[in-house]
Amino acid sequence: MKDTMDFAQYDVGYDIPAKPGMDEADIQTPCLVLDLDALERNIKKMGDYAKSHGMRHRVHGKMHKSVDVAKLQHELGGAVGVCCQKVSEAEVFARGGIKDILVSNQVRDPAKIDRLAQLPKFGARVIVCVDDIDNVAELSEAAQKHGTTLDIFIEIDCGAGRCGVVTTEAVIDIAKAVDAAPALRFSGIQAYQGAMQHIDSYEARKEKLDVAIAMVQDAVDGLKAEGLSCELVSGGGTGSYYFESNSGVYNELQCGSYAFMDADYGRILDADGKRIDQGEWENAFFLLTQVMSHAKADKAICDAGLKAQSVDSGLPVVYGRDDVEYIKCSDEHGVIADPKGVLKVGEKLRLVPGHCDPTANVHDWYVGVRNGKVETVWPVSARGRAY
Amino acid sequence: MKDTMDFAQYDVGYDIPAKPGMDEADIQTPCLVLDLDALERNIKKMGDYAKSHGMRHRVHGKMHKSVDVAKLQHELGGAVGVCCQKVSEAEVFARGGIKDILVSNQVRDPAKIDRLAQLPKFGARVIVCVDDIDNVAELSEAAQKHGTTLDIFIEIDCGAGRCGVVTTEAVIDIAKAVDAAPALRFSGIQAYQGAMQHIDSYEARKEKLDVAIAMVQDAVDGLKAEGLSCELVSGGGTGSYYFESNSGVYNELQCGSYAFMDADYGRILDADGKRIDQGEWENAFFLLTQVMSHAKADKAICDAGLKAQSVDSGLPVVYGRDDVEYIKCSDEHGVIADPKGVLKVGEKLRLVPGHCDPTANVHDWYVGVRNGKVETVWPVSARGRAY
Repeated sequence: MKDTMDFAQYDVGYDIPAKPGMDEADIQTPCLVLDLDALERNIKKMGDYAKSHGMRHRVHGKMHKSVDVAKLQHELGGAVGVCCQKVSEAEVFARGGIKDILVSNQVRDPAKIDRLAQLPKFGARVIVCVDDIDNVAELSEAAQKHGTTLDIFIEIDCGAGRCGVVTTEAVIDIAKAVDAAPALRFSGIQAYQGAMQHIDSYEARKEKLDVAIAMVQDAVDGLKAEGLSCELVSGGGTGSYYFESNSGVYNELQCGSYAFMDADYGRILDADGKRIDQGEWENAFFLLTQVMSHAKADKAICDAGLKAQSVDSGLPVVYGRDDVEYIKCSDEHGVIADPKGVLKVGEKLRLVPGHCDPTANVHDWYVGVRNGKVETVWPVSARGRAY
Repeated sequence: MKDTMDFAQYDVGYDIPAKPGMDEADIQTPCLVLDLDALERNIKKMGDYAKSHGMRHRVHGKMHKSVDVAKLQHELGGAVGVCCQKVSEAEVFARGGIKDILVSNQVRDPAKIDRLAQLPKFGARVIVCVDDIDNVAELSEAAQKHGTTLDIFIEIDCGAGRCGVVTTEAVIDIAKAVDAAPALRFSGIQAYQGAMQHIDSYEARKEKLDVAIAMVQDAVDGLKAEGLSCELVSGGGTGSYYFESNSGVYNELQCGSYAFMDADYGRILDADGKRIDQGEWENAFFLLTQVMSHAKADKAICDAGLKAQSVDSGLPVVYGRDDVEYIKCSDEHGVIADPKGVLKVGEKLRLVPGHCDPTANVHDWYVGVRNGKVETVWPVSARGRAY
């Protein structure tokens, strides 16, 4: 995608924040900047981990919503495919050439099911989660209509309290229905423990995962007793992948945030009590902002507010600075406490957003930089694809 | 714009949530829905108020980021122009045909100043705020370079604690510099008290505005004593417009949220202690969502999470329902407490978002409905235009 983008059609500032070849200093703000060196190191590191632990890595495309980043994760990180949360995201990844796509979510709307059932025509294996036996017939009918096959994961709710079934009996019931349904293939289990990913303590996260692993093991055993084998047992995020990898029951990871990192994830602690953004992963994802007013001596006002990021998981952190602090976020402004008055109007700062996923979703572009130069500009390909 | 949109190019679900003529029930979720009857009544009501109080109404386009909504505000509500917060938004409104545009913010980046100075070529009066005397020469130079004239408002910080000067002396100093600068015209004062708009109590809001009005009156008097007249004194939002309108010193309003309403604004109280969404303004802006899982008896999971809205000002409210409650928001899911199990998978609900501005900014489209039918689909024209 990056090789064929025609940048001539875009007007810097009006509809694109930068063009390849520009100096980093000339990037228009606010905009998302990817440190390509750090991004590549993160991707390679997680890929090496998965490989050395015999795990498939289905990278979570819902985090970045970018075909370009997903392809980099395939090339450098040995990714086997992507997961995403919406049919419209799956459509973007399928059209972009990704060949193994999991919608790690329920799809119940008839129009969405119809769209989903057409996606295997792009040459991709398409997997979807089910937590309700009534959904089986809906999916089977649509796949038959389009002459395709849909792969099915049964979703287990292993602690998130959201979608998913909570008993092995329910897993078996749905799996049997899937197994008997035309144009569907029972392919495994989805068991992502999302609620625990952001707990600071490693030990507390491990306790939550132990519960999840026990539920999943019970389901796998129950299915086996019924003659149903799980090709894939899929789950695991940036705060837990080592638990799934060493569980003996999962065989596929679904990490997303490791590639970019953010302020909220960065605060969780590894087994040695060290923040994961201080060694395990590098910050590769920044919100570049500029100081636009300094009319008060102790406060700088920057141009990145609520329309340039999501603050659901806390305010952004000014990267590499402890002399200034982002303290307030309104629609188009950020207030940066500058007690010593060190910031100047026009100065640009890198912010580490509180939460990478919904922050990426506000922007149309990633500006990839290396050695002070803009090397690439990638569209946030599935931005706004929420249907 | 709506008359010339070629909907044939869009694929419902993949890149547009609905097309004109569809039943409301077939709209793909999550998506923004405008109740056109309510929207038109809100716009007309505020227009009538402004007219009857001798106030100009410069509608705040930063709220909706839509050329179509701005044009409706001109047609039905007698709007005299728009304000917005970013040069890229001003570009969208200027290209869309709006003839009087205020960037109610500071513009300091050289590339942005250069773009701003070209906008009068679209036939629009272009006004920008200044709070630093150094900015005057920058703007003057750019306008001279492009052979245009920029109008200048001096911004007073009347309580928001963000951009803006805080003394009449500073206002006069900058106004004199503007008055002396080639290609600039001193046009008035920007004094928007943003910090108070969301205070629940009418009396508490009045107290804040009294301070603002006194500051503005002092500045206007000070300027007059120096022979500098203020053509426009501009400010006022949905929580304060009656104070500015009756102040004797403001002559221009800048209301935005009145047209759409949201859950956070709706909670503030009018002079009679009544919520402003219970009579003063109607909810015209909804986030349509669908129940996608009900695997737990007391919880429905819907498809509108953090990527379909901003929760900075609180969670959305399920419109017209007191038997269910939206209680948790994650990236792509909302958890709706459904203690009596009344919701069904596939059911659609209208949510009133907590904060309309950053929620609109996540979406590409407004679906305008009337009498159960999709009447129009408008692009969120300046979505993502943050540079």
